[in-house]
Amino acid sequence: MAVPYLTAVLLLAMLSWGQDFPFRDPTLPWEERLDDLVNRLTLDEMVLQMSKGGVMWNGPAPPIERLGIRPYIWNTECLRGDVDAPGWATAFPQALGLAASFSPSLIYRVANATATEVRAKHNHFVSVGNYEDHTGLSCFSPVLNIMRHPLWGRNQETYGEDPFLTAELGVAFVKGLQGDHPRYVKASAGCKHFDVHGGPENIPTSRLSFDAKVSERDWRMTFLPQFEACVRAGTFSLMCSYNRINGVPACANKRLLTDILRGEWGFQGYVVSDEGAIELIMMAHHYTQSILETAVASVNAGCNLEVTCVLKRNIFSYIGEAVANGNISLEMIKDRVRPLFRTRMRLGEFDPPAMNPYNALGPGDVQNDAHHQLALQAAIQSFVLLKNRNGALPLRAEDVRSKTLAVTGPFADATAYLFGSYTPIPELRYIYTPRRGLATVFPKVTFAAGCSSPRCDKYSPTEVKSTVEAADIVVVCLGTGIQMETEAWDRPDLALPGHQLKLLQDVVAWAAGRPVILLLFNAGPLDISWAKAHNGVGAILACFFPAQATGLAIAKVLVGDEGANPAGRLPATWPAGMHQVPPMENYTMAGRTYRYYGDDPPLYPFGYGLSYTLFRYSDLVLGAEVVPVCGNLSLSVVVENVGPRDGEEVVQLYLRWGEASVPVPRWQLVGFRRVLVPQGQVTKVPFLLSFHQRAVWAGEWRLEPGSFTLFAGGQQPFQETRVPSNILRADFSVLGSALKRSQC
Amino acid sequence: MAVPYLTAVLLLAMLSWGQDFPFRDPTLPWEERLDDLVNRLTLDEMVLQMSKGGVMWNGPAPPIERLGIRPYIWNTECLRGDVDAPGWATAFPQALGLAASFSPSLIYRVANATATEVRAKHNHFVSVGNYEDHTGLSCFSPVLNIMRHPLWGRNQETYGEDPFLTAELGVAFVKGLQGDHPRYVKASAGCKHFDVHGGPENIPTSRLSFDAKVSERDWRMTFLPQFEACVRAGTFSLMCSYNRINGVPACANKRLLTDILRGEWGFQGYVVSDEGAIELIMMAHHYTQSILETAVASVNAGCNLEVTCVLKRNIFSYIGEAVANGNISLEMIKDRVRPLFRTRMRLGEFDPPAMNPYNALGPGDVQNDAHHQLALQAAIQSFVLLKNRNGALPLRAEDVRSKTLAVTGPFADATAYLFGSYTPIPELRYIYTPRRGLATVFPKVTFAAGCSSPRCDKYSPTEVKSTVEAADIVVVCLGTGIQMETEAWDRPDLALPGHQLKLLQDVVAWAAGRPVILLLFNAGPLDISWAKAHNGVGAILACFFPAQATGLAIAKVLVGDEGANPAGRLPATWPAGMHQVPPMENYTMAGRTYRYYGDDPPLYPFGYGLSYTLFRYSDLVLGAEVVPVCGNLSLSVVVENVGPRDGEEVVQLYLRWGEASVPVPRWQLVGFRRVLVPQGQVTKVPFLLSFHQRAVWAGEWRLEPGSFTLFAGGQQPFQETRVPSNILRADFSVLGSALKRSQC
Repeated sequence: MAVPYLTAVLLLAMLSWGQDFPFRDPTLPWEERLDDLVNRLTLDEMVLQMSKGGVMWNGPAPPIERLGIRPYIWNTECLRGDVDAPGWATAFPQALGLAASFSPSLIYRVANATATEVRAKHNHFVSVGNYEDHTGLSCFSPVLNIMRHPLWGRNQETYGEDPFLTAELGVAFVKGLQGDHPRYVKASAGCKHFDVHGGPENIPTSRLSFDAKVSERDWRMTFLPQFEACVRAGTFSLMCSYNRINGVPACANKRLLTDILRGEWGFQGYVVSDEGAIELIMMAHHYTQSILETAVASVNAGCNLEVTCVLKRNIFSYIGEAVANGNISLEMIKDRVRPLFRTRMRLGEFDPPAMNPYNALGPGDVQNDAHHQLALQAAIQSFVLLKNRNGALPLRAEDVRSKTLAVTGPFADATAYLFGSYTPIPELRYIYTPRRGLATVFPKVTFAAGCSSPRCDKYSPTEVKSTVEAADIVVVCLGTGIQMETEAWDRPDLALPGHQLKLLQDVVAWAAGRPVILLLFNAGPLDISWAKAHNGVGAILACFFPAQATGLAIAKVLVGDEGANPAGRLPATWPAGMHQVPPMENYTMAGRTYRYYGDDPPLYPFGYGLSYTLFRYSDLVLGAEVVPVCGNLSLSVVVENVGPRDGEEVVQLYLRWGEASVPVPRWQLVGFRRVLVPQGQVTKVPFLLSFHQRAVWAGEWRLEPGSFTLFAGGQQPFQETRVPSNILRADFSVLGSALKRSQC
Repeated sequence: MAVPYLTAVLLLAMLSWGQDFPFRDPTLPWEERLDDLVNRLTLDEMVLQMSKGGVMWNGPAPPIERLGIRPYIWNTECLRGDVDAPGWATAFPQALGLAASFSPSLIYRVANATATEVRAKHNHFVSVGNYEDHTGLSCFSPVLNIMRHPLWGRNQETYGEDPFLTAELGVAFVKGLQGDHPRYVKASAGCKHFDVHGGPENIPTSRLSFDAKVSERDWRMTFLPQFEACVRAGTFSLMCSYNRINGVPACANKRLLTDILRGEWGFQGYVVSDEGAIELIMMAHHYTQSILETAVASVNAGCNLEVTCVLKRNIFSYIGEAVANGNISLEMIKDRVRPLFRTRMRLGEFDPPAMNPYNALGPGDVQNDAHHQLALQAAIQSFVLLKNRNGALPLRAEDVRSKTLAVTGPFADATAYLFGSYTPIPELRYIYTPRRGLATVFPKVTFAAGCSSPRCDKYSPTEVKSTVEAADIVVVCLGTGIQMETEAWDRPDLALPGHQLKLLQDVVAWAAGRPVILLLFNAGPLDISWAKAHNGVGAILACFFPAQATGLAIAKVLVGDEGANPAGRLPATWPAGMHQVPPMENYTMAGRTYRYYGDDPPLYPFGYGLSYTLFRYSDLVLGAEVVPVCGNLSLSVVVENVGPRDGEEVVQLYLRWGEASVPVPRWQLVGFRRVLVPQGQVTKVPFLLSFHQRAVWAGEWRLEPGSFTLFAGGQQPFQETRVPSNILRADFSVLGSALKRSQC
């Protein structure tokens, strides 16, 4: 249905620009201009602005001809590149892979490059009067939900299981996307899905009407902090989610959208509904009984902007009626509309175009060399080396020159499975499968897929066997892909799909001792216990969904080229089996993630990842051993590269509470830093532990006295599966009376 | 979400073409090639083909790499031009306006030009590996639902209230769209929404889960015939609708999709679900309780292809499980997949490209001069002259040269309101508003909108007054637009929206006797009783939504230029008030449409429309006065143009049953012909009344003996509001015993 942006296209051409309204005066303060703009709008005009597509379901918010205001399209996806706008775009690695880099600076650069492409394409679309879906500047990204269950279909979109890691990376994304211009936002962020959203997806009642029953403590300590960080980072938007929270749909949840978000956090931006989430309040949740009631509930709860789906008619189009009935106040409508125009104003729409340097971005800024290089670096930084028996990797230089390398498995040469969901589409020439990438380094690369899709329902061993038997080195490419895990599609179990394990076992047998390297393309953890244990598998590299640069990154990492030494760390626990995991429907954090895990050791712990070199920790020095209850604590630790080559290390700092009065995590990541340590050198890494990070939830955020322990190292403390490096420990005490956090 | 067509784009580039499978051999019969193709597919492959987007909700059916089969995208909208494919396209008048032309040949040409643009753009998309939504060749058009209520939001998409007219025009559309090549289909048609779909839209429970309770007789005599005609015309597809029919959702309705559609009518094509209709069987209708149950019900009922919406996961992806469980047979799956590939095969996908002349279509075939001319001719032919007091129209030549013409009303110069829903978007330079079009003819055109949108909530009389007072002739442009009536948006009443009537009344007062011409832009009837009765309104022209050529067509018709003499006829009754109309929720035809109307005269009857000239009928000659029960009857009538200029006339033939044993319509349109009759000349118009047209529904189609009457003229018989022309009548008798239709 194209009519709404017809409205846009055609009216735009007739607008008389350059009218001298104060809201167009760049010399005035932003809020004064907003006052002017919002006060000029009639109720009807405001109502139309509160739904993507006005009264309709498609296209942009309508123009306001008499004020020379253009249409604006609100839905853009930017998870790791310009996802859905027409035309090609650079495809960076999927979010969970970016999280594995433990590198806020990498994510900042990826988000910034994403915004550049979004803005450059937007400039073109506006120049031709195109306001269709996905051509705007306001992103429905990043995803800040917690990876709380290994089988959830949307794990790949997240930054993993830890709220602190998620918050740090989310902040980097928001800042990178919105840019560093003092006046203009490059593209506006929208953190989602707010809140307590994390599966199940598999049946419609769960995906669209699940009631997440969450304790206040889990909500505060696990599901809210990263969104608060996103607000502090200056996001212009949050997206309310499909699910209920303790009985109240997120998009009609006044406690969430007003009391916490605006009241406690001071959010000034807009809340947009997930697609169809408003109508589903009525249709799936049956929380309201009529359209009018639904509109009233959602707007009064704190929703600013509706995006509809199957209803094809915006429930918010009834707002005018609700105002007439006295169910919503006119002031409320003005409050709801104001952040929409604030966003557009800060994106530069109402300033003279020459003032905004982002208007100079054009086609040359999309898919350029710098972005290709960044996509490659991001892929390299995302890889997690899970196993490296007897230094199987990196491959030796003489192997590269003289040997035959066989690539096998359903991911070996299938471009379509390497990207994950919400991906931009680059031009084909920029896409490197493992096979294509390895062929840039190895003179002889042979190939047999074995099975044609990740499902691997049918496995054809014959060709694999002959290929493996004729090779010197074998690379096996296994995993899931969006065929097995994606939005609306939880996995049934942890197993490698179909006959993939059989394929791996056959390869190991046929290889008969020659090196076998296992590459994994997945998000949710896989049961690779056989590969972990079997000596025939020399190395395992978790690649996530590296997107366009997959093969180039793999080639560089396998040969350790140009300092390509894996330093990604698992952003989520890989359980040893589903017996370790509470049911997905249960929203308690008890027994979940490294913070609340049971005693049974996982297959691979959160924070785990090997290197081609070795690190040794020393000199964990605290600024004080006694800290006042509201005091921050500075500290540092020294990391030395004692191994055979340069490498990056992710220094991790965990806090353990000694005697908290309420339940707290076993320990909590409170700092991390990805640092390059040249071979034989040392680096001193400073941290600051703020008092906030010691706060516990006891009906309120509270700072308590007591004893605390810090662990510093390249991994979590107390894990069975460890990297070959030491972990340092230091205790400190907090003195004083317990205080509310707000009293500090 | 872009991943599914990434799959498409990338795999395509790697496909190895030119394999010598029999299904690619153009020398073999189609069905033999289909046997070969379908028998090569695994169950998994077939399952993926049964959902747009495979397992996902977006993008094309996946490629089948090992067979060199490309992706294919199934959703394209073609109601009157290439609606949603990226890029510009010619916008022909909205469907209901096309229906008012009473011209199958016009609709054939519009549909054929549409297919040309669809194919030309598709050729480009495939050449760049683009398989995104709306780039394919399989149209979700035409709409054959009956306009059974004046306030239904989707009236504009229909061909009006009569099943015979709808069938004739639908057949013309299907044939025009699919083209006349003996081997290749230009674009494939999809008649919708099957079946008994016609509002209400206003509340979600009605739009998405309404249970249309229909009697068997109304179903057979009103809601099915035009779809049967569509099947006979060779459509490749039908779309099952959102609603239930007597308790069973259309997309899970075995009686509809198998017993009637395939059993009785012999349909060989595919049934595609309306967007989300499969998941709504469970989620809105609550007719099934689980995904698996829903998939089983729908596939077994007769659905071939699913298009999902909010669920973002195709329910048909569970078909494999249903087959494993024995709930669906493998043979059933093959039967369901076969028509999908038959369609693609007939579109030419598996033949050597050089064989298919449609592959030569390219950018020069989109928006070319021929199509602009056709859009203009179509608009002219769609206009219905409702009133022409004292020959107010056409305007006299001296008025055109010397006078000032004022154009006013919200439709006077607003491009966005003239197109209706499901519209292509042409380049701006091809769009003529009334104001712009009239300025091509009148040297001095002045303008004041009066209100800025069709809602006309705010009316600014001052500028209108001065403009009208300074003009010699005033054109007032009123109506609805998609702001007032569209999908998901029934109107509340028949009134001109907002202050439109006040604007008209003011204009008439200010014009003080100078000519006032009222132009209407709407689909559902309007209460224009004041304008009909008031002498100050000289002429009323119903324009529907004429799209890009609006203003040019109006200019030509207002001055009667180049034979532009209005000859459109109302394709639906305009009631005198809502008291004449049964509630929308009630699906009985009693009291609805000219066929079952009450005794209270409507404002304007079905079939009504004036001309600038006058016609007189004579010589209604039947081939026989006594007809056997299974006999056809040939007849003819002579129409003479006795007025002052050349003109087209829509000759209408109505049948009245004398003594049917079961309820039948008061009378039924059984023939119509739009003919050009030069001034002073006569034309003899032949008709054939087939025995089918006399059949009545008595638990089966039955031919009965008895007396019958035919009425021939430029209008219905027995109407209070008449055109100045005579109506001829002839009786005939049918002799013999009653027979089943199938026995004839």
